[in-house]
Amino acid sequence: MSQVKRIAILGATGSIGRSALSVVDANADRLQVVGLAAGENASLLAEQIARYRPKVAAVATAQALGELLDRLGPGGMPAKVDCGADGLFAVATHPDVDILLCASSGTAGLEAVLAAIDAGKTIALANKEVLVMAGSVMMDAAHKRGVAILPVDSEHNAIHQCLHGRRRNEIRRLVLTASGGPFRTMGAEELSRVTPEDALRHPTWQMGKKITVDSATLMNKGLEVIEARWLFGMTAREIDVVIHPQSVVHSMVELRDGSVIAQLSVTDMRLPIQYAFAYPDRWDGALPPLDLARLGTLEFSPPDLERFPCLRLAYDALRQGGAWPIVLNAANEVAVDAFLSSRIPFQAIPRVIEAALNASDRDSLAPSTISDVRAMDAWARAFSHETIRLLPSS
Amino acid sequence: MSQVKRIAILGATGSIGRSALSVVDANADRLQVVGLAAGENASLLAEQIARYRPKVAAVATAQALGELLDRLGPGGMPAKVDCGADGLFAVATHPDVDILLCASSGTAGLEAVLAAIDAGKTIALANKEVLVMAGSVMMDAAHKRGVAILPVDSEHNAIHQCLHGRRRNEIRRLVLTASGGPFRTMGAEELSRVTPEDALRHPTWQMGKKITVDSATLMNKGLEVIEARWLFGMTAREIDVVIHPQSVVHSMVELRDGSVIAQLSVTDMRLPIQYAFAYPDRWDGALPPLDLARLGTLEFSPPDLERFPCLRLAYDALRQGGAWPIVLNAANEVAVDAFLSSRIPFQAIPRVIEAALNASDRDSLAPSTISDVRAMDAWARAFSHETIRLLPSS
Repeated sequence: MSQVKRIAILGATGSIGRSALSVVDANADRLQVVGLAAGENASLLAEQIARYRPKVAAVATAQALGELLDRLGPGGMPAKVDCGADGLFAVATHPDVDILLCASSGTAGLEAVLAAIDAGKTIALANKEVLVMAGSVMMDAAHKRGVAILPVDSEHNAIHQCLHGRRRNEIRRLVLTASGGPFRTMGAEELSRVTPEDALRHPTWQMGKKITVDSATLMNKGLEVIEARWLFGMTAREIDVVIHPQSVVHSMVELRDGSVIAQLSVTDMRLPIQYAFAYPDRWDGALPPLDLARLGTLEFSPPDLERFPCLRLAYDALRQGGAWPIVLNAANEVAVDAFLSSRIPFQAIPRVIEAALNASDRDSLAPSTISDVRAMDAWARAFSHETIRLLPSS
Repeated sequence: MSQVKRIAILGATGSIGRSALSVVDANADRLQVVGLAAGENASLLAEQIARYRPKVAAVATAQALGELLDRLGPGGMPAKVDCGADGLFAVATHPDVDILLCASSGTAGLEAVLAAIDAGKTIALANKEVLVMAGSVMMDAAHKRGVAILPVDSEHNAIHQCLHGRRRNEIRRLVLTASGGPFRTMGAEELSRVTPEDALRHPTWQMGKKITVDSATLMNKGLEVIEARWLFGMTAREIDVVIHPQSVVHSMVELRDGSVIAQLSVTDMRLPIQYAFAYPDRWDGALPPLDLARLGTLEFSPPDLERFPCLRLAYDALRQGGAWPIVLNAANEVAVDAFLSSRIPFQAIPRVIEAALNASDRDSLAPSTISDVRAMDAWARAFSHETIRLLPSS
């Protein structure tokens, strides 16, 4: 038997975190949970702690920490528990951790992931912000420390599998597939009337609200293009997007002779999570395999950047570089939040983002520290809130 | 620049041979033609010799050799020229040859390929009979000599690319795609009336007559399943077939965790030929790339072994082992020939093959020499001719 891998999870009570724990269940002889960090969901974290007995745990707030103590009692608490940034840091850098799964949403985990890289942990990455906002900082640190960053997003995970064993000079192009979201076939007029409820009905994946809206605008794919730039060292011109409503082909790599390698599987996040935990080995799957003989029909078509301008804006931000991807991401979060609370219509999302990009300094350098990143993020959020406040009410 | 690779081609004037020479044209600084062997087409071979200036050439018969001399004159002839088995042998084993492309059809090249393996040449294999008839002999020789056998068939080439860099214990299953041929959607009644002309209209590939009929019966896929067994060391249970009419996905590999890796490209034999010549490098393609964003629709469905029993017979032969694949192949050649000359109906092809399989010795061992292979082949051909003679005329 191979050596047991010791994992820590940021975002343990979220969708990816829970899938990761079910991967642990299926590979109990290979994986051991050392650390668990959650946000506010103390009740679920308490259950997870009782079951997996981590050495370190964390929650976002002092209040959640109090609730955790109430539920577990002093005897049931892990050896080390903390809250806030210190808590994330303690989980991410615990000396027993081999692999840190970063599955928290938003920017809270940035410093903790960087500290984990510096501590030599392998990073299994399921958080978009880490690379969209701080790709340069993170990749520099990972290269310096010789740390692997293994993508858990199904698209990047697919590309990682397709690239396996190939040299950089064999690769011509990455092609990310996109389901196209629930509004794929809608005209502009119809798009102007969609509600938050409409946007939350994703055709192939069950995910959180923010990412589901991002799928509907194609911003999710835009953020993935930026992530791919950092993970695989490609330029914007070498990364393409193709609409594939069935979400069976998770992404593709075009090689220099024109041959294309694709990865296909059932749509279940347990597969890419297990891949990252097992890498460079591969373990038996706990899921029924894809029934290739009964795949039926797979469709592919180009994305429409007119109807879905968020994808175009993401490419603009990637080409422009500097702080633009940070502004793109921050403005998008503010705009999606405004859409979900019915303060702006669906099609105002790209308008808010474009306004923020246009207002940001075109000549800004890429931030070289996480504090620089946070400063630019804060500016873009404030600017976007103001933009939304000034939008003519629809 | 990398070192020039020196190639020889058996079957230079056939479809694959001509594609291979156009790959040489596109990579003139990387490839040099050392040897060319053809069958009876002395006029085309003369042109090829005049253009590529090989050191050794061969034709099948003394008559073709005379015609070659007439066309080229003594001054235009390569340093070494011969005919028949000696000619094939001379081309395959010339000391300057690095890679032998075996693209001759039928069994004539068996001894020459074995000699090339013994001489340490890399084999680029586009001939089905070599592995279907003598897989055990060939693979043993290749392993002993440390020689690579690189598949040029688009399906096996796809699998070779998908397997790249992966360990045997990661692989669960190979999945060969099949266009399904021109009769894919026909019912049994309709199948009973198809003519040789109907069978020769293949939907996606332009090929010779014999292989085009084999595509219509699915025997071509059956022979490929047997080839895959030898090339990749898998059992019959680990090799599946799926119908994919568009021939864009050339084959797939299912890994132990349920992830599937597929290879896609335009349907042009120059791609797998160049892959084999370049391996383990990869060179720029001379073809327009697959337009992934406009792929449109790809369909997948299980094969129907009732309507297309040849595929079932091939699996039977593979499971039975021993001499069965030789009998399968020989009986199929005789039956297809009889169908093409309108002596038997389309649906009699599997009946002839099944009769030959049933008449062969179930307990026979796999032949251990090429002479054993030829003896079993001759028996199966004679038996099949007799079976056809005795068939009630339709």
